[in-house]
Amino acid sequence: MSIAHPYLLFLGDAPDQLAAKVADGIARWRPDWCLGQLRLPGCKADVGLPDTTLDEAVARGARTLVIGVANRGGRIADTWTETMVRALELGLDIASGLHNKVADIAVVRDKAETLGRQIFDVRHPNRTFDIGTGARRPGKRLLTVGTDCSIGKMFTALALEAEMRRRGMKADFRATGQTGILISGDGVSIDAVVSDFVSGAVEWLTPAADPDHWDVVEGQASLLHPSYAGVTLGLVHGSQPDALVMCHEPARPHMRGLPGRPVPDLRTCIAVHEQAARVTNPEARVVGISLNTAALDEAAALELIARTGRELGLPCADPVRTGVGPIVDALR
Amino acid sequence: MSIAHPYLLFLGDAPDQLAAKVADGIARWRPDWCLGQLRLPGCKADVGLPDTTLDEAVARGARTLVIGVANRGGRIADTWTETMVRALELGLDIASGLHNKVADIAVVRDKAETLGRQIFDVRHPNRTFDIGTGARRPGKRLLTVGTDCSIGKMFTALALEAEMRRRGMKADFRATGQTGILISGDGVSIDAVVSDFVSGAVEWLTPAADPDHWDVVEGQASLLHPSYAGVTLGLVHGSQPDALVMCHEPARPHMRGLPGRPVPDLRTCIAVHEQAARVTNPEARVVGISLNTAALDEAAALELIARTGRELGLPCADPVRTGVGPIVDALR
Repeated sequence: MSIAHPYLLFLGDAPDQLAAKVADGIARWRPDWCLGQLRLPGCKADVGLPDTTLDEAVARGARTLVIGVANRGGRIADTWTETMVRALELGLDIASGLHNKVADIAVVRDKAETLGRQIFDVRHPNRTFDIGTGARRPGKRLLTVGTDCSIGKMFTALALEAEMRRRGMKADFRATGQTGILISGDGVSIDAVVSDFVSGAVEWLTPAADPDHWDVVEGQASLLHPSYAGVTLGLVHGSQPDALVMCHEPARPHMRGLPGRPVPDLRTCIAVHEQAARVTNPEARVVGISLNTAALDEAAALELIARTGRELGLPCADPVRTGVGPIVDALR
Repeated sequence: MSIAHPYLLFLGDAPDQLAAKVADGIARWRPDWCLGQLRLPGCKADVGLPDTTLDEAVARGARTLVIGVANRGGRIADTWTETMVRALELGLDIASGLHNKVADIAVVRDKAETLGRQIFDVRHPNRTFDIGTGARRPGKRLLTVGTDCSIGKMFTALALEAEMRRRGMKADFRATGQTGILISGDGVSIDAVVSDFVSGAVEWLTPAADPDHWDVVEGQASLLHPSYAGVTLGLVHGSQPDALVMCHEPARPHMRGLPGRPVPDLRTCIAVHEQAARVTNPEARVVGISLNTAALDEAAALELIARTGRELGLPCADPVRTGVGPIVDALR
């Protein structure tokens, strides 16, 4: 899809910071792409960018208004519509991570068509895909996987891309969810693809490349999560990963959305994901552990990171607390 | 969806018998539902039912014209359209297993709307589903799985349903593909469901039931097939099977659509499918093997069936050659 930047991040009337987490992610990982934030009266979120009007943003070269906020109850308020129409009139495209399509709002869609602007509803794939084949292709691929949903797979992949690039390695983050797509300007919202085509979509997303090039693929869900494991398996087979990085949050009381179902242990998760990955890449192996230790104090966190790495015989890191250097070391 | 029968099976101008394999399956498994076959000039297929005109079928109580044929190159011929419009005028609904939607043909859709008839495009789910939860529910479930695609999973499930009913057991076939849906009059074409909702769709398809009731669920693809394994995993988790029956065709030279990729061995397939199924049903186990021995002569087939059963310590049968009695014995 290739969403043009610079972005103006629209936070709407977000009731709290969490509602703006998509914008938060973009501001964190692509600060150079963001000219500012646009907030409506009553907005309780702040992603740390200068408040910028549509006119100011356009004057400074903005290309896309990014709807980086979850709306309440699925409804898009009239005040948002006004802003979107005005953005189109001023020459901007619109990109949205909302579940509801911006392109379904007639007044916005019609305005975009009249003016020749683009609307990117990134949760909704805008193309079809072939069936996957599992055929090997050149280039290296790393996939982040996890013991659960929402456990740091996107964050870890972005941290790995940043560290690999810092070291001069050829690395490209490949987005599979809406926030990742807005962060990278491209990608496929893989859980919205028709099930028959998931591995094919991932093969398309991570094509043949130079032998020393790494696609760093954003994982989704977990092979052991009963709601979404099929999505994960399509990702694992389609990306034919050389390397897997297992993400885990030690303090989580149960799997996301499933009270009473404990998070599986790391060793089991590693075995299950490696076994599945070897269907399309016999060399696939977990090369590191990414722990989210936000719930622990510094001493306890560092002790847990060290102990986990020692017990599993793998480099272990917290992307926020320690950086992912030890995991990248293992790739070389 | 609940497609009303009796059916009139439309074979169109099928170029060969294989093109009518959907109609073939319906005629084989639901002969009581089929009043006859309707063939256009040039039709080379014959499913063994009396040739019947639309008017005759309606006079004898037909409720639905079933398009049981694969069309050439995805195009639906004008001669088919004429027949469909006439069927609607005579009071029939239309059900189709075609990839292209009958409801996308304006003249057919408009006629159905005007007359209040239904069009069932069974490859395309006509409802939305919740996310799966993996929560246990009463009732028993059997899922057919396989070492590859198109290896007898639907056939085996239907044979099991028939044998179980013959013995007075409570059993319902649950269809997950277009032919199965036309055979049972209901179901979900699971490979056309958006990936996030596959296990949820299967939970909906196989709901809570009496403790002694068996849902016999039609499997799809294989966990070791790199094109479609995500579909299979959603089916395995969503159906939370008590029993799995592994389908296999010994003579197959490679996995379907993937020259050079050998069909995995039975023992590996059993282990992988049992492991995955235990995520939602810790008691899940493979209870029998269904072999397709059509390529062998009688002596070689019986020897292979006996040897396979002995080596794996499981009842083994060919639904066509021996019937599935030994597998049903193992369920009691």
